[in-house]
Formats: sequence, C-alpha cells, structure tokens
Amino acid sequence: MSSAAPPHDPAERPLRAVALGGGHGLQVTLAALTRLTPDVTAVVTVADDGGSSGRLRRELGMLPPGDLRKALAALASPDENGQRWAQVFQHRFGGNGALAGHAVGNLLLAGLLDVVGDPVAVLDEACRLVGARGRVLPMSGEPLDMEAEVVGLDADPDAVRTIRGQVAIASTPGRVKKVRLTAANGEQRTPQACPHAVRAVLDADVVLLGPGSWFTSVLPHLLVPELHEALVSTSARRVVVLNLVPQPGETAGFSPEQHLDVLSQHAPRLSVDAVLADAGSVPTPDRLRAAATGLGAQTLLDTVASPAAPGRHDPEALAASLAAALERRSDRWR
Amino acid sequence: MSSAAPPHDPAERPLRAVALGGGHGLQVTLAALTRLTPDVTAVVTVADDGGSSGRLRRELGMLPPGDLRKALAALASPDENGQRWAQVFQHRFGGNGALAGHAVGNLLLAGLLDVVGDPVAVLDEACRLVGARGRVLPMSGEPLDMEAEVVGLDADPDAVRTIRGQVAIASTPGRVKKVRLTAANGEQRTPQACPHAVRAVLDADVVLLGPGSWFTSVLPHLLVPELHEALVSTSARRVVVLNLVPQPGETAGFSPEQHLDVLSQHAPRLSVDAVLADAGSVPTPDRLRAAATGLGAQTLLDTVASPAAPGRHDPEALAASLAAALERRSDRWR
Repeated sequence: MSSAAPPHDPAERPLRAVALGGGHGLQVTLAALTRLTPDVTAVVTVADDGGSSGRLRRELGMLPPGDLRKALAALASPDENGQRWAQVFQHRFGGNGALAGHAVGNLLLAGLLDVVGDPVAVLDEACRLVGARGRVLPMSGEPLDMEAEVVGLDADPDAVRTIRGQVAIASTPGRVKKVRLTAANGEQRTPQACPHAVRAVLDADVVLLGPGSWFTSVLPHLLVPELHEALVSTSARRVVVLNLVPQPGETAGFSPEQHLDVLSQHAPRLSVDAVLADAGSVPTPDRLRAAATGLGAQTLLDTVASPAAPGRHDPEALAASLAAALERRSDRWR
Repeated sequence: MSSAAPPHDPAERPLRAVALGGGHGLQVTLAALTRLTPDVTAVVTVADDGGSSGRLRRELGMLPPGDLRKALAALASPDENGQRWAQVFQHRFGGNGALAGHAVGNLLLAGLLDVVGDPVAVLDEACRLVGARGRVLPMSGEPLDMEAEVVGLDADPDAVRTIRGQVAIASTPGRVKKVRLTAANGEQRTPQACPHAVRAVLDADVVLLGPGSWFTSVLPHLLVPELHEALVSTSARRVVVLNLVPQPGETAGFSPEQHLDVLSQHAPRLSVDAVLADAGSVPTPDRLRAAATGLGAQTLLDTVASPAAPGRHDPEALAASLAAALERRSDRWR
C-alpha cells in the first residue's frame, strides 16, 4: 500500500481502471471497462511468437504487435470513424502470398515502430487514429521470450522439460508448472517494464487480471519484476476474472481453483481483493472460495458467460458484475 | 469548351487546380500547387506493375498504390501530424524478409481497399489521415495494364515490337512510338475513368500535365477515353510542364519538342494553353516554340530547375512560374 494514489471519489474524477492481459480475454475486459469509465488503460503482453506477430517479430526484430492491436480495436471509439479503423486494424490479408494472414494493424504498428521508435508514442498515435477510449501500453518496451517448465512429456511423470516460446507453451500436451520471461534473442537478461505501465498500475483504482490464456497472457505481467512490484504495492482494488473453461494445451483439465494456485505460485506476495467467476463454470464453489481466501480475496460468483458465444464472457454482464464488485455490493453474490 | 465551370474569379473562390501524373513528377507539381491554392486534386496513374506496388497488385489484385501514396505524401499537411504520417506512409521496411521494400502507406492503402472497397472512399480516408491539402483520385478505379509499340530492338530498325508492362516500357532500350492501356489481367477492355477524376478535370480552372516519365506517368491519362474527353473539353487552362532531362529508357535522347510531338500523336484533338519549360533545359527554343504553337500553346521559359537536386524541379520556383502563367504575365517569359 505504498502508492500515493488517493482513494477514488466518483464525484471528483472517473474511475481509473487498468486491465492486464492479451488476446481475446483482454478484449473482453476492455469492452467491459469502457462501459464503466473513460479512463481505461490496457497493459499488454509482448511475448507472443506466433502468427502474424511472430512473423513480424522475426523479420523486423520488433515488439509483437498482435495483442496491442487487439487492445486498440477493443478500445476504438464506437463512432463510425473508430469502428472503420478498428475493422481495418483487425483485417487480415487473404490469398496465399507474402502478406497472407498479416493483420493490417500489425503492419501499420510495425511501420510506426520503425519510424517513430518509442512504442508508447506509437501506441498513443494509434489510439488517436481509432479514437480509443483509453490508452494501450506494452508491459515492456522490448519483445520478450517465454519459457515454461513442463511435466508429463516423458515416460517419467516427474521429468521436467523446458519448453520455449509462447506458441509452444500454449499448445503443449504436457502440464505447465512454471513460466518465466527473458529479454528476447536468447539474452538471459531480466525483462524491463514499460515505466508508463508501472505508473498506470500504481495510479489505478482497480486492476484486472484475466481472463485469458493463463500462462501466456495473464501470468506474464507478474514475470516482469517492476510490474510485479507495482501490482503488489498499488492501492488499487485487485480483481482476478477467471476463465469460463480450461484452455486446451496450457490449462487443459485445470479447475478454477487451480488457476488461483498457479497465480499464487508465481506471485506469492500478491494479495487479491476479489475473484470474479461465472457461477455456471465453477463445479466446486467451496474449493474456489478456499483458494480465493488464501489470496485474501472475496469470491464473487455471477452470470458473466455470453449466451451467444460459448466460452466467452459477455462484456455487458461482466461490466455490471465489475461495477457491483467495485461498489462492494455483497448482496449480489451467490 | 463544353464545361459548365464558370471562369475563375479569385475573389470568389480559390483556384481549382488538377495535376495529372504519377511518381516524383506529380509530387513536384502538387508541392508547387499547394503554394497557390487549397483546392488541389491529384489524378494519379494506376498502371504501375513494379516494386512494392507491383507485388501488391499481383498478390491481391488491387490498384497499384505507390503513385497514390506519393501524391498523398506530397499533399500532407505541413503540420507535425501530417508530416509524421507522410513519413510513415513513405517509409519502406528494410531487412530481407517478406516485407522488405514494401512502403507502409502501400500496405495501409491495401488494407483500406480490402475493407472499404471503393478506392475514392479509401483515398478520402487516407487524405484525412495525413491532413491532405486537397484530394487524391485514381485515374481509373481498376488496375490497368500498359503496352507499348517499340522500335529499335531488332536488326531491322523499322521492326515494331509490343512491350508489355510499365516497368518494361520505362526501361526499354528501344524507342517507344506509342502506348496504350487496357483493363488488367489480359482483358482487352477499354479502361474506365474514375468519374470523380473526370468531374475534377471538367470543373478545374487549371490542369497540369507533366513533368514525369512521359510514356508511363504523363500520357496514360490521355489513354483513358473519358478522361481524354474531359481534358479536351474542359474550360480549364491546360499547362504542360516539360521534363528537365530525358529519362533513360523511355525517352532517352528525346528533345523537349519531341515530348510535345508524342503528346500530340496520342491526343490529336487536345489543345494546350501553355508549355512551361526550364530555360536552361531547352537547347533549341525555336523548335520548342514551333511545336508548342502546333498545340495552340504559348511557350513559357523560366528558371524552374532545383539548384539543390539536379534533374528535379524546384517546387517554389515552379509555383511562382505557374502563378505568372495563370495571371498571363507575358513580361516574365524569355
């Protein structure tokens, strides 16, 4: 509780919300948060090595732009201009040539990074272009590499293997025990946090972790030391939003409480204020409550799954649930 | 003189200027025209098949964006935002991967074309992005193919060969006699003009042809029938700006008057009001005057070459010279 952030008074200024993550999970939390406040900051993982991002990263040595692009699209203004640019950012070239599969926004971010250099300035410019309702920041200003300790890949069930790269970890048939990040290109240097992202976490009223690919989109933020420290010391409410279903590969067969266990293993000093889960996606609520209590968190069970898209959160429902969590309306929770 | 455009009264509205061309030549006329009026329209050739444009055209079947991109950069606002985006548009990826050599603006235009479809809407959007001082239009909404009749490639000096493609024509060691355009992909269909470009020519107060690669950037506009008709019938002042030096390949060894001869051969019904040339680049002024008179044009000899960049026009000097030409200040000309 070392942060200088004053407690949030809604009459005085809007709620400052920070969502950490990557991919579709982050898109959902950003969509939910824009319903609650105009002051949303996305802090985005930069360890992706797959798809269009991986190709750009290998070819140009740049930050993988895909998760940043998705966050920009999620924060884009709902007006015609913002939505057109969001659509252009998200559009992927078809065909079977050199550009096939590249998202237009990834290529534009690549060009801006080449010309402007500073990724924070680049993302601020991209935010202006899409009329973003908030800000998008990378968790680190440099591309990062991910490694995981994985068991279950050998005849000996206790044999631990090191798997390298986000794609390989996300799709491993083994069981991920632990992940870590390093600066890219084989340097074993500790990853440096983006100072603006650290500041945003320290100044926030609420910080969201999850939902998303647990090891490859949610936990990475805890593996950047300065960001980890900021998450531990911020006076913001820390809310963990659990996934609706385990992900094939990295969290196949994981129960909701196991998600909290690995969070705790990667950040033993992190206390959490609330764990928000979809009531219909929690088979053993008592076990989840026990795990949440271990983190210092209240367990909030609500209906936040999308009726239309199985396995996805409904942004509207998630927004309502988060609002209740922030108002500490205990009547709401089962 | 069938156009309904009223004669230009500078007290009432700004001068409407249209520059037709492509590549560096068009960039210079646009830079000059922005010094004279806020109402500049670039009408840009879309027959390029080389470089980044050619790769995009072959891969995605789209309009070649390179000349459009250069016109956008030339019209970009001089403010910080406009110049940053112009720089991003013009930036080419380095390295030796799949993106090497692609201009960022070409990729962005490709993405916009894929999503939005209509090239005029795409270019209007791109104009907004760079804060363009005017408008950029393609001469045709579809990619076009170019063919040339070339002599001097065989032992028989009169043997005529058909050379296909803008790059091949621009670099032929033979002598180009005639060029023509067709719809792309081997269709022998007549090229369709962009209706907005036709309208712009009809409504203009002044229309500029040249400078630039004569056969591959300047003449193509006369090979699109509706645009040709508009150029013949507009009440605008028609000004031809001659090149400073012959281009290796397509106009190697061409005198200034030969440039006018081929213009006349490709557009026998086109009358011209003024031919503007750099005095130091015209070895035989009498011959040029004779050729210009044949087109109905006054010959204006001035100093318009850049002292800094050999072979390039100086936009400031060209603007002053054009202003004098439009005010019909006969005292200025040698």
